[in-house]
Amino acid sequence: MISLVLRYARRVASTRDRILAVSEELFRRQGLNGTGLKQILDQAEAPFGSLYHHFPGGKVELAAATIERAGAHYGAVVAAKLGDPGDDPVGSLRGAFRDAAETLRETDYVDACPIETVALEVANTNEELRTATARVFDSWTDAAALWLAAAGVPAENSRGLALAMLAALEGAFVLARATRTPDAVLAAGDAIAALLDAELRAQGQTPSTA
Amino acid sequence: MISLVLRYARRVASTRDRILAVSEELFRRQGLNGTGLKQILDQAEAPFGSLYHHFPGGKVELAAATIERAGAHYGAVVAAKLGDPGDDPVGSLRGAFRDAAETLRETDYVDACPIETVALEVANTNEELRTATARVFDSWTDAAALWLAAAGVPAENSRGLALAMLAALEGAFVLARATRTPDAVLAAGDAIAALLDAELRAQGQTPSTA
Repeated sequence: MISLVLRYARRVASTRDRILAVSEELFRRQGLNGTGLKQILDQAEAPFGSLYHHFPGGKVELAAATIERAGAHYGAVVAAKLGDPGDDPVGSLRGAFRDAAETLRETDYVDACPIETVALEVANTNEELRTATARVFDSWTDAAALWLAAAGVPAENSRGLALAMLAALEGAFVLARATRTPDAVLAAGDAIAALLDAELRAQGQTPSTA
Repeated sequence: MISLVLRYARRVASTRDRILAVSEELFRRQGLNGTGLKQILDQAEAPFGSLYHHFPGGKVELAAATIERAGAHYGAVVAAKLGDPGDDPVGSLRGAFRDAAETLRETDYVDACPIETVALEVANTNEELRTATARVFDSWTDAAALWLAAAGVPAENSRGLALAMLAALEGAFVLARATRTPDAVLAAGDAIAALLDAELRAQGQTPSTA
Protein backbone atom coordinates (compact mmCIF):
# COMPACT_ATOMS: atom_id res chain seq x y z
CA MET A 1 0.00 0.00 0.00
CA ILE A 2 2.79 2.39 0.93
CA SER A 3 4.61 1.48 -2.25
CA LEU A 4 1.49 2.19 -4.33
CA VAL A 5 1.23 5.61 -2.75
CA LEU A 6 4.91 6.22 -3.31
CA ARG A 7 4.69 5.28 -6.95
CA TYR A 8 1.75 7.63 -7.32
CA ALA A 9 3.44 10.35 -5.29
CA ARG A 10 6.57 10.21 -7.43
CA ARG A 11 4.52 10.80 -10.55
CA VAL A 12 2.81 13.95 -9.33
CA ALA A 13 4.68 17.13 -9.94
CA SER A 14 4.49 19.26 -6.82
CA THR A 15 6.36 18.63 -3.61
CA ARG A 16 3.31 19.90 -1.72
CA ASP A 17 1.11 17.23 -3.36
CA ARG A 18 3.65 14.50 -2.62
CA ILE A 19 3.75 15.51 1.05
CA LEU A 20 -0.06 15.52 1.26
CA ALA A 21 -0.42 12.15 -0.48
CA VAL A 22 2.06 10.48 1.85
CA SER A 23 0.60 12.23 4.88
CA GLU A 24 -2.91 10.97 4.01
CA GLU A 25 -1.69 7.40 3.69
CA LEU A 26 0.30 7.47 6.94
CA PHE A 27 -2.49 9.14 8.94
CA ARG A 28 -4.93 6.51 7.68
CA ARG A 29 -2.62 3.68 8.70
CA GLN A 30 -1.13 4.94 11.96
CA GLY A 31 -2.91 8.16 12.95
CA LEU A 32 -1.64 11.67 13.53
CA ASN A 33 0.31 11.15 16.75
CA GLY A 34 1.87 7.95 15.44
CA THR A 35 3.29 9.72 12.38
CA GLY A 36 6.43 11.83 12.52
CA LEU A 37 7.21 14.67 10.13
CA LYS A 38 10.51 13.02 9.26
CA GLN A 39 8.70 9.86 8.12
CA ILE A 40 6.36 11.90 5.92
CA LEU A 41 9.18 13.89 4.34
CA ASP A 42 11.35 10.81 3.82
CA GLN A 43 8.59 8.92 2.04
CA ALA A 44 7.61 11.99 0.02
CA GLU A 45 11.29 12.45 -0.91
CA ALA A 46 10.99 16.06 0.16
CA PRO A 47 13.70 18.12 1.86
CA PHE A 48 12.95 19.13 5.45
CA GLY A 49 12.76 22.83 4.57
CA SER A 50 9.93 22.16 2.13
CA LEU A 51 7.56 21.36 4.98
CA TYR A 52 7.63 24.85 6.47
CA HIS A 53 7.79 26.39 3.00
CA HIS A 54 4.48 24.77 2.02
CA PHE A 55 2.96 24.56 5.51
CA PRO A 56 4.25 27.48 7.60
CA GLY A 57 2.06 26.32 10.50
CA GLY A 58 3.95 23.02 10.65
CA LYS A 59 2.32 19.72 11.52
CA VAL A 60 -1.08 21.22 12.42
CA GLU A 61 -1.35 23.07 9.11
CA LEU A 62 -0.23 19.95 7.24
CA ALA A 63 -2.78 17.86 9.15
CA ALA A 64 -5.60 20.32 8.40
CA ALA A 65 -4.74 20.30 4.68
CA THR A 66 -4.49 16.49 4.72
CA ILE A 67 -7.91 16.15 6.38
CA GLU A 68 -9.49 18.49 3.81
CA ARG A 69 -7.84 16.72 0.86
CA ALA A 70 -8.66 13.24 2.17
CA GLY A 71 -12.25 14.28 2.84
CA ALA A 72 -12.79 15.45 -0.73
CA HIS A 73 -10.97 12.44 -2.14
CA TYR A 74 -12.74 9.76 -0.10
CA GLY A 75 -16.11 11.47 -0.55
CA ALA A 76 -15.64 11.19 -4.30
CA VAL A 77 -14.64 7.51 -4.05
CA VAL A 78 -17.74 6.63 -2.04
CA ALA A 79 -19.98 8.70 -4.33
CA ALA A 80 -18.58 6.84 -7.34
CA LYS A 81 -19.23 3.48 -5.65
CA LEU A 82 -22.80 4.45 -4.79
CA GLY A 83 -23.39 5.82 -8.28
CA ASP A 84 -26.75 7.24 -9.26
CA PRO A 85 -29.62 5.91 -7.09
CA GLY A 86 -31.23 4.72 -10.35
CA ASP A 87 -33.70 1.84 -10.34
CA ASP A 88 -32.20 -0.12 -7.47
CA PRO A 89 -30.91 2.20 -4.72
CA VAL A 90 -31.16 -0.60 -2.11
CA GLY A 91 -28.90 -2.82 -4.21
CA SER A 92 -26.50 0.06 -4.88
CA LEU A 93 -26.21 0.80 -1.18
CA ARG A 94 -25.61 -2.82 -0.24
CA GLY A 95 -23.10 -3.09 -3.09
CA ALA A 96 -21.15 -0.06 -1.85
CA PHE A 97 -20.77 -1.62 1.61
CA ARG A 98 -19.73 -4.94 0.01
CA ASP A 99 -17.12 -3.10 -2.06
CA ALA A 100 -15.82 -1.41 1.09
CA ALA A 101 -15.57 -4.82 2.80
CA GLU A 102 -13.68 -6.26 -0.17
CA THR A 103 -11.30 -3.29 -0.24
CA LEU A 104 -10.55 -3.80 3.45
CA ARG A 105 -9.75 -7.47 2.89
CA GLU A 106 -7.51 -6.69 -0.07
CA THR A 107 -5.51 -4.04 1.80
CA ASP A 108 -4.89 -5.89 5.08
CA TYR A 109 -7.64 -3.76 6.67
CA VAL A 110 -5.84 -0.46 6.11
CA ASP A 111 -7.94 1.16 3.41
CA ALA A 112 -10.91 2.38 5.45
CA CYS A 113 -11.91 5.98 6.20
CA PRO A 114 -8.79 8.18 5.87
CA ILE A 115 -9.69 10.65 8.62
CA GLU A 116 -11.27 8.44 11.28
CA THR A 117 -8.22 7.81 13.46
CA VAL A 118 -7.20 11.46 13.30
CA ALA A 119 -10.75 12.60 14.11
CA LEU A 120 -10.72 10.65 17.37
CA GLU A 121 -7.19 11.74 18.27
CA VAL A 122 -8.01 15.44 17.90
CA ALA A 123 -11.66 15.50 19.09
CA ASN A 124 -10.72 16.78 22.54
CA THR A 125 -7.14 17.88 22.02
CA ASN A 126 -6.96 20.24 19.01
CA GLU A 127 -9.90 22.49 18.18
CA GLU A 128 -8.57 23.59 14.77
CA LEU A 129 -8.20 20.00 13.59
CA ARG A 130 -11.46 18.92 15.22
CA THR A 131 -13.36 21.50 13.17
CA ALA A 132 -11.53 20.32 10.03
CA THR A 133 -12.80 16.77 10.63
CA ALA A 134 -16.29 18.10 11.45
CA ARG A 135 -16.44 19.90 8.10
CA VAL A 136 -15.59 16.66 6.30
CA PHE A 137 -18.17 14.59 8.18
CA ASP A 138 -20.80 17.29 7.61
CA SER A 139 -20.05 17.34 3.87
CA TRP A 140 -20.34 13.55 3.68
CA THR A 141 -23.62 13.64 5.64
CA ASP A 142 -25.00 16.27 3.25
CA ALA A 143 -23.96 14.22 0.20
CA ALA A 144 -25.48 11.03 1.63
CA ALA A 145 -28.74 12.85 2.46
CA LEU A 146 -28.95 14.17 -1.12
CA TRP A 147 -28.35 10.67 -2.49
CA LEU A 148 -31.08 9.22 -0.25
CA ALA A 149 -33.49 12.00 -1.22
CA ALA A 150 -32.79 11.29 -4.89
CA ALA A 151 -33.51 7.63 -4.15
CA GLY A 152 -36.94 8.60 -2.86
CA VAL A 153 -36.51 9.06 0.88
CA PRO A 154 -38.65 11.98 2.08
CA ALA A 155 -36.74 15.10 3.07
CA GLU A 156 -37.69 14.86 6.75
CA ASN A 157 -36.07 11.41 7.03
CA SER A 158 -33.08 11.71 4.70
CA ARG A 159 -30.67 13.45 7.07
CA GLY A 160 -31.33 11.02 9.93
CA LEU A 161 -30.84 8.02 7.66
CA ALA A 162 -27.70 9.63 6.20
CA LEU A 163 -26.25 10.03 9.70
CA ALA A 164 -27.12 6.44 10.58
CA MET A 165 -25.56 5.23 7.31
CA LEU A 166 -22.32 7.15 7.87
CA ALA A 167 -22.21 6.09 11.52
CA ALA A 168 -22.71 2.44 10.60
CA LEU A 169 -19.94 2.61 8.00
CA GLU A 170 -17.46 4.38 10.28
CA GLY A 171 -18.15 2.08 13.21
CA ALA A 172 -17.99 -1.00 11.02
CA PHE A 173 -14.52 0.12 9.90
CA VAL A 174 -13.40 0.20 13.55
CA LEU A 175 -14.74 -3.31 14.22
CA ALA A 176 -13.42 -4.73 10.93
CA ARG A 177 -9.94 -3.29 11.38
CA ALA A 178 -9.75 -4.54 14.97
CA THR A 179 -11.12 -8.02 14.35
CA ARG A 180 -9.68 -8.53 10.85
CA THR A 181 -13.01 -9.66 9.46
CA PRO A 182 -15.36 -7.81 7.10
CA ASP A 183 -18.44 -9.07 8.99
CA ALA A 184 -19.35 -5.74 10.59
CA VAL A 185 -19.18 -3.90 7.25
CA LEU A 186 -21.45 -6.47 5.62
CA ALA A 187 -23.87 -6.42 8.58
CA ALA A 188 -23.94 -2.60 8.55
CA GLY A 189 -24.66 -2.62 4.82
CA ASP A 190 -27.49 -5.11 5.24
CA ALA A 191 -28.94 -3.04 8.10
CA ILE A 192 -28.89 0.29 6.26
CA ALA A 193 -30.15 -1.33 3.04
CA ALA A 194 -33.09 -2.81 5.00
CA LEU A 195 -33.91 0.62 6.43
CA LEU A 196 -33.78 2.23 2.98
CA ASP A 197 -35.96 -0.55 1.61
CA ALA A 198 -38.53 0.07 4.36
CA GLU A 199 -38.44 3.83 3.71
CA LEU A 200 -39.08 3.34 0.00
CA ARG A 201 -41.86 0.81 0.59
CA ALA A 202 -43.49 3.26 3.00
CA GLN A 203 -43.48 5.76 0.11
CA GLY A 204 -45.38 3.28 -2.03
CA GLN A 205 -42.36 2.46 -4.17
CA THR A 206 -41.56 -1.18 -4.84
CA PRO A 207 -37.81 -1.50 -4.47
CA SER A 208 -35.98 -4.38 -6.05
CA THR A 209 -35.30 -7.25 -3.70
CA ALA A 210 -31.59 -7.29 -4.65
CA MET B 1 -13.69 14.64 34.08
CA ILE B 2 -10.02 14.21 34.87
CA SER B 3 -10.62 15.46 38.39
CA LEU B 4 -13.44 12.96 38.88
CA VAL B 5 -11.13 10.16 37.84
CA LEU B 6 -8.44 11.47 40.15
CA ARG B 7 -10.77 11.62 43.09
CA TYR B 8 -11.79 8.07 42.35
CA ALA B 9 -8.22 6.96 41.77
CA ARG B 10 -7.09 8.37 45.10
CA ARG B 11 -9.70 6.35 46.92
CA VAL B 12 -8.67 3.01 45.50
CA ALA B 13 -5.93 1.24 47.33
CA SER B 14 -3.56 -0.19 44.79
CA THR B 15 -1.07 1.79 42.76
CA ARG B 16 -1.70 -0.58 39.87
CA ASP B 17 -5.42 0.25 39.90
CA ARG B 18 -4.69 3.98 40.04
CA ILE B 19 -2.41 3.72 37.03
CA LEU B 20 -5.03 1.73 35.08
CA ALA B 21 -7.86 4.14 35.95
CA VAL B 22 -5.88 7.17 34.82
CA SER B 23 -4.60 5.36 31.75
CA GLU B 24 -8.16 4.46 30.69
CA GLU B 25 -9.32 8.06 31.04
CA LEU B 26 -6.35 9.50 29.13
CA PHE B 27 -6.54 6.92 26.33
CA ARG B 28 -10.24 7.68 25.92
CA ARG B 29 -9.60 11.41 25.71
CA GLN B 30 -6.36 11.58 23.71
CA GLY B 31 -5.49 8.10 22.48
CA LEU B 32 -2.46 5.89 23.05
CA ASN B 33 0.14 7.80 21.08
CA GLY B 34 -1.02 11.13 22.49
CA THR B 35 -0.50 9.94 26.07
CA GLY B 36 2.91 9.82 27.71
CA LEU B 37 3.85 7.53 30.57
CA LYS B 38 4.94 10.52 32.62
CA GLN B 39 1.46 12.06 32.33
CA ILE B 40 -0.16 8.81 33.47
CA LEU B 41 2.15 8.40 36.44
CA ASP B 42 1.86 12.06 37.47
CA GLN B 43 -1.94 11.94 37.47
CA ALA B 44 -1.96 8.56 39.22
CA GLU B 45 0.49 9.98 41.82
CA ALA B 46 2.65 6.92 41.25
CA PRO B 47 6.46 6.87 41.29
CA PHE B 48 8.11 6.13 37.95
CA GLY B 49 9.53 2.81 39.17
CA SER B 50 6.01 1.54 39.88
CA LEU B 51 5.21 1.38 36.17
CA TYR B 52 7.79 -1.30 35.42
CA HIS B 53 7.10 -3.01 38.73
CA HIS B 54 3.44 -3.53 37.83
CA PHE B 55 3.86 -3.66 34.04
CA PRO B 56 7.29 -5.14 33.23
CA GLY B 57 6.45 -4.89 29.51
CA GLY B 58 6.16 -1.11 29.80
CA LYS B 59 3.64 0.91 27.80
CA VAL B 60 2.43 -1.99 25.65
CA GLU B 61 1.67 -4.16 28.67
CA LEU B 62 -0.04 -1.22 30.38
CA ALA B 63 -2.07 -0.53 27.25
CA ALA B 64 -3.14 -4.18 26.93
CA ALA B 65 -4.26 -4.23 30.57
CA THR B 66 -6.07 -0.90 30.12
CA ILE B 67 -7.93 -2.17 27.04
CA GLU B 68 -9.01 -5.32 28.87
CA ARG B 69 -10.14 -3.40 31.97
CA ALA B 70 -11.93 -0.72 29.95
CA GLY B 71 -13.64 -3.37 27.83
CA ALA B 72 -15.07 -5.14 30.86
CA HIS B 73 -16.00 -1.86 32.53
CA TYR B 74 -17.73 -0.24 29.54
CA GLY B 75 -19.45 -3.50 28.60
CA ALA B 76 -20.99 -3.56 32.07
CA VAL B 77 -22.08 0.10 31.79
CA VAL B 78 -23.83 -0.50 28.46
CA ALA B 79 -25.41 -3.73 29.72
CA ALA B 80 -26.79 -1.87 32.74
CA LYS B 81 -28.22 0.86 30.49
CA LEU B 82 -29.87 -1.69 28.22
CA GLY B 83 -31.18 -3.64 31.19
CA ASP B 84 -33.31 -6.72 30.71
CA PRO B 85 -35.05 -6.80 27.29
CA GLY B 86 -38.33 -7.12 29.20
CA ASP B 87 -41.58 -5.98 27.66
CA ASP B 88 -40.21 -3.13 25.59
CA PRO B 89 -36.81 -4.01 24.09
CA VAL B 90 -37.24 -1.44 21.31
CA GLY B 91 -37.77 1.32 23.87
CA SER B 92 -34.84 0.05 25.97
CA LEU B 93 -32.54 0.11 22.97
CA ARG B 94 -33.57 3.60 21.92
CA GLY B 95 -33.24 4.75 25.54
CA ALA B 96 -29.68 3.39 25.79
CA PHE B 97 -28.63 5.39 22.72
CA ARG B 98 -30.36 8.50 24.14
CA ASP B 99 -28.48 8.04 27.41
CA ALA B 100 -25.21 7.74 25.49
CA ALA B 101 -26.02 10.97 23.63
CA GLU B 102 -26.79 12.75 26.90
CA THR B 103 -23.58 11.49 28.49
CA LEU B 104 -21.59 12.83 25.54
CA ARG B 105 -23.20 16.26 25.88
CA GLU B 106 -22.56 16.34 29.63
CA THR B 107 -18.88 15.41 29.29
CA ASP B 108 -17.86 17.75 26.45
CA TYR B 109 -17.99 14.76 24.08
CA VAL B 110 -15.23 12.85 25.88
CA ASP B 111 -17.16 10.01 27.50
CA ALA B 112 -17.69 7.72 24.50
CA CYS B 113 -16.18 4.28 23.89
CA PRO B 114 -12.96 4.02 25.95
CA ILE B 115 -11.03 1.83 23.48
CA GLU B 116 -12.08 3.25 20.09
CA THR B 117 -9.22 5.70 19.53
CA VAL B 118 -6.65 3.14 20.65
CA ALA B 119 -8.22 0.44 18.46
CA LEU B 120 -7.70 2.55 15.34
CA GLU B 121 -4.20 3.61 16.35
CA VAL B 122 -3.01 0.02 16.82
CA ALA B 123 -5.04 -1.76 14.10
CA ASN B 124 -2.10 -1.88 11.69
CA THR B 125 0.78 -1.00 13.98
CA ASN B 126 0.76 -3.31 17.01
CA GLU B 127 -0.56 -6.85 16.70
CA GLU B 128 -0.60 -7.57 20.44
CA LEU B 129 -2.77 -4.53 21.15
CA ARG B 130 -4.92 -5.10 18.06
CA THR B 131 -5.86 -8.55 19.32
CA ALA B 132 -6.63 -7.05 22.74
CA THR B 133 -9.13 -4.64 21.14
CA ALA B 134 -10.54 -7.46 18.98
CA ARG B 135 -11.25 -9.53 22.08
CA VAL B 136 -13.18 -6.62 23.60
CA PHE B 137 -15.25 -5.96 20.47
CA ASP B 138 -15.97 -9.69 20.12
CA SER B 139 -17.13 -9.87 23.74
CA TRP B 140 -19.42 -6.86 23.24
CA THR B 141 -20.82 -8.37 20.03
CA ASP B 142 -21.53 -11.65 21.84
CA ALA B 143 -23.26 -9.81 24.69
CA ALA B 144 -25.37 -7.71 22.29
CA ALA B 145 -26.36 -10.82 20.31
CA LEU B 146 -27.48 -12.56 23.51
CA TRP B 147 -29.52 -9.50 24.52
CA LEU B 148 -31.19 -9.37 21.09
CA ALA B 149 -31.90 -13.10 21.21
CA ALA B 150 -33.48 -12.67 24.64
CA ALA B 151 -35.58 -9.86 23.15
CA GLY B 152 -36.92 -12.29 20.57
CA VAL B 153 -34.63 -11.90 17.55
CA PRO B 154 -34.09 -15.32 15.93
CA ALA B 155 -30.62 -16.80 16.39
CA GLU B 156 -29.73 -16.58 12.69
CA ASN B 157 -30.24 -12.78 12.72
CA SER B 158 -29.04 -11.81 16.18
CA ARG B 159 -25.29 -11.67 15.47
CA GLY B 160 -25.72 -9.56 12.32
CA LEU B 161 -27.99 -7.12 14.11
CA ALA B 162 -25.58 -7.04 17.08
CA LEU B 163 -22.70 -6.13 14.75
CA ALA B 164 -24.80 -3.43 13.07
CA MET B 165 -25.83 -2.06 16.47
CA LEU B 166 -22.25 -1.91 17.77
CA ALA B 167 -21.02 -0.44 14.47
CA ALA B 168 -23.73 2.24 14.52
CA LEU B 169 -22.86 3.17 18.10
CA GLU B 170 -19.09 3.30 17.53
CA GLY B 171 -19.43 5.29 14.31
CA ALA B 172 -21.95 7.65 15.87
CA PHE B 173 -19.40 8.36 18.62
CA VAL B 174 -16.86 9.40 15.96
CA LEU B 175 -19.33 11.75 14.26
CA ALA B 176 -20.66 13.17 17.53
CA ARG B 177 -17.21 13.84 18.98
CA ALA B 178 -16.05 15.49 15.75
CA THR B 179 -19.15 17.61 15.15
CA ARG B 180 -20.01 18.29 18.81
CA THR B 181 -23.64 17.33 18.30
CA PRO B 182 -25.44 14.21 19.56
CA ASP B 183 -27.41 13.92 16.29
CA ALA B 184 -25.58 10.87 14.95
CA VAL B 185 -26.04 8.94 18.20
CA LEU B 186 -29.78 9.69 18.20
CA ALA B 187 -30.10 8.80 14.50
CA ALA B 188 -28.17 5.55 15.03
CA GLY B 189 -30.43 4.67 17.97
CA ASP B 190 -33.57 5.32 15.92
CA ALA B 191 -32.19 3.23 13.06
CA ILE B 192 -31.27 0.20 15.15
CA ALA B 193 -34.51 0.45 17.14
CA ALA B 194 -36.47 0.43 13.87
CA LEU B 195 -34.60 -2.69 12.73
CA LEU B 196 -35.26 -4.44 16.03
CA ASP B 197 -38.92 -3.45 15.82
CA ALA B 198 -39.15 -4.92 12.30
CA GLU B 199 -37.44 -8.13 13.45
CA LEU B 200 -39.88 -8.58 16.33
CA ARG B 201 -42.90 -7.81 14.17
CA ALA B 202 -41.67 -10.40 11.66
CA GLN B 203 -41.68 -12.91 14.54
CA GLY B 204 -45.33 -12.14 15.18
CA GLN B 205 -44.59 -10.15 18.31
CA THR B 206 -46.20 -6.76 18.73
CA PRO B 207 -43.51 -4.47 20.10
CA SER B 208 -44.44 -1.32 21.90
CA THR B 209 -44.37 1.79 19.75
CA ALA B 210 -42.20 3.62 22.32
